Amino acid sequence: MIRIGILGYGNLGKGVECAIAQNDDMELVAVFSRRDPASVKIMTPGVTVYGIDALKDMKDEVDVLVICGGSATDLPVQTPEYASMYNVVDSFDTHARISEHFANVDAAAKKAGKIGVISCGWDPGMFSLNRLYANSILPNGSDYTFWGKGVSQGHSDAVRRIDGVKDCRQYTIPVEAAVDAVRSGSNPELTTRQKHTRECFVVAEEGADLARIESEIKNMPNYFADYDTTVHFITEEEMKANHSGLPHGGMVIRTGKTGTDLEHTHVIEYKLTLDSNPEFTGSVLVACARAAYRMNKEGMSGCKTMFDIAPAYLSAQSGEELRAHLL
Amino acid sequence: MIRIGILGYGNLGKGVECAIAQNDDMELVAVFSRRDPASVKIMTPGVTVYGIDALKDMKDEVDVLVICGGSATDLPVQTPEYASMYNVVDSFDTHARISEHFANVDAAAKKAGKIGVISCGWDPGMFSLNRLYANSILPNGSDYTFWGKGVSQGHSDAVRRIDGVKDCRQYTIPVEAAVDAVRSGSNPELTTRQKHTRECFVVAEEGADLARIESEIKNMPNYFADYDTTVHFITEEEMKANHSGLPHGGMVIRTGKTGTDLEHTHVIEYKLTLDSNPEFTGSVLVACARAAYRMNKEGMSGCKTMFDIAPAYLSAQSGEELRAHLL
Repeated sequence: MIRIGILGYGNLGKGVECAIAQNDDMELVAVFSRRDPASVKIMTPGVTVYGIDALKDMKDEVDVLVICGGSATDLPVQTPEYASMYNVVDSFDTHARISEHFANVDAAAKKAGKIGVISCGWDPGMFSLNRLYANSILPNGSDYTFWGKGVSQGHSDAVRRIDGVKDCRQYTIPVEAAVDAVRSGSNPELTTRQKHTRECFVVAEEGADLARIESEIKNMPNYFADYDTTVHFITEEEMKANHSGLPHGGMVIRTGKTGTDLEHTHVIEYKLTLDSNPEFTGSVLVACARAAYRMNKEGMSGCKTMFDIAPAYLSAQSGEELRAHLL
Repeated sequence: MIRIGILGYGNLGKGVECAIAQNDDMELVAVFSRRDPASVKIMTPGVTVYGIDALKDMKDEVDVLVICGGSATDLPVQTPEYASMYNVVDSFDTHARISEHFANVDAAAKKAGKIGVISCGWDPGMFSLNRLYANSILPNGSDYTFWGKGVSQGHSDAVRRIDGVKDCRQYTIPVEAAVDAVRSGSNPELTTRQKHTRECFVVAEEGADLARIESEIKNMPNYFADYDTTVHFITEEEMKANHSGLPHGGMVIRTGKTGTDLEHTHVIEYKLTLDSNPEFTGSVLVACARAAYRMNKEGMSGCKTMFDIAPAYLSAQSGEELRAHLL
């Protein structure tokens, strides 16, 4: 049994907990939280919630620590820190800082003889893998990534910070005509506005100036100004009834040419349709935890991404079983 | 530069040759053929065609030998034989014999300190990888593989063996209603007949009994009897004008559940739409040749499948470039 610890018990930590329960070769042995452990109720019976200080004493009880903090401030500190004690896995997704994060985790993990797998999930993660495979097969081609339809938590949070807004759920929606143009192999050049639209469901405070809120959303730089955005004002009851889930997904498409005169077009498409973004991401993290454990058992150490993990390490099945049933 | 040799110059060998020309880090150094070398004209200028006997003397000139023979009789002999001299890559696709083929190649390659990558392509190959990743992420779920729309060469050949048939092109076509049912996450149980239909374009000999040919096709065990098959009789001119390509493709879909009460459904779909089956397969073989070369350089040996290859080995880019641009 691979003994897993979870650090951070928000939506993602809960998703990891659900995933562990589906895998017979692993067990959840501890949850670590910055909150008062007595206030944290988890789902798995018989598992203790510890304060974060307990991590310094549990090296012999946890094989892999899955770190479920945020990329902005938690993971840049936590992942290198705990890679010096544990095999660790995170879902770091700040693209611009991956190189720095990789170097920090690599130094700590190598020194400790541990494995640190960073940037696991679906983007970065499964979408990255599909970009890499498709680029390796079709060097002469173009990449397209579409997100949604799904809830962007970053965009929802940005709207919530507007004066007069009580709650918001923001959906990112790929433009069907753009997806169709890409799938046709016509290799279109697409602007930000042509690829996605944004739709906001907003609960406003009583008496708030709705026209001002709508204008502030639609003109918000980076988040909304470059997109066609629709704003709907709804009640708290409607929010709860119709927008309580965290669905997401999207697709990675590469089109490319082969042949003596590049006369043949190929389309490679990877598509995810996810009812629960955190539970799917948690499921990827758990598969990566298995890989981290095994690779470390074989003597490997240092920072890895999913690019560096031979796929067989992710599966509970043996090489022989995989060749017999999935090849 | 990685020096590639091609053994066997049919459609697949030509596809490999086209792919090598698109990759700046490799060069074609030789083609080996069982035919009279003087009769084999290849596309790449300045590259020599050798008889198969020359292989015993060219170990120092070829880094990876891509073996482009058939799975029925060529590869079971050739791949182990040449794995004792070269890093080799093949597209062995007889599922029932993969275990035996793996063992034979593994023994030869380990003894020689070489790498042998078997069963590369799209199925087995990219489809297998997608089954493995999706199964590792969603252990609670179901797999579906659909092929087509595309030309099945095995089925076309089977029809050509019928008395009175001059030529045939057989298309395998996924049933849209079945694909939609799978994508909905409803987890349907599908019979062979419900998943695919088959369409044959047949050129008959003059005076042949068309009704008899049609009946022989539709009732052929294994190949057609379990499917709804349509037969069209066409002229040689129509065959040449409308059916000279070798398009193919298909999709691998896994649907699975997560959550405390398995209340969330996820759909993972990988889809290929290929104008040229042999050129796409050749492109995968070439990426695997790069991986074989690199893994061998790092001291690895033995038989591998794409399950055993960390994705980064397939790409010409460095780890740093991959993390910066594709993660």
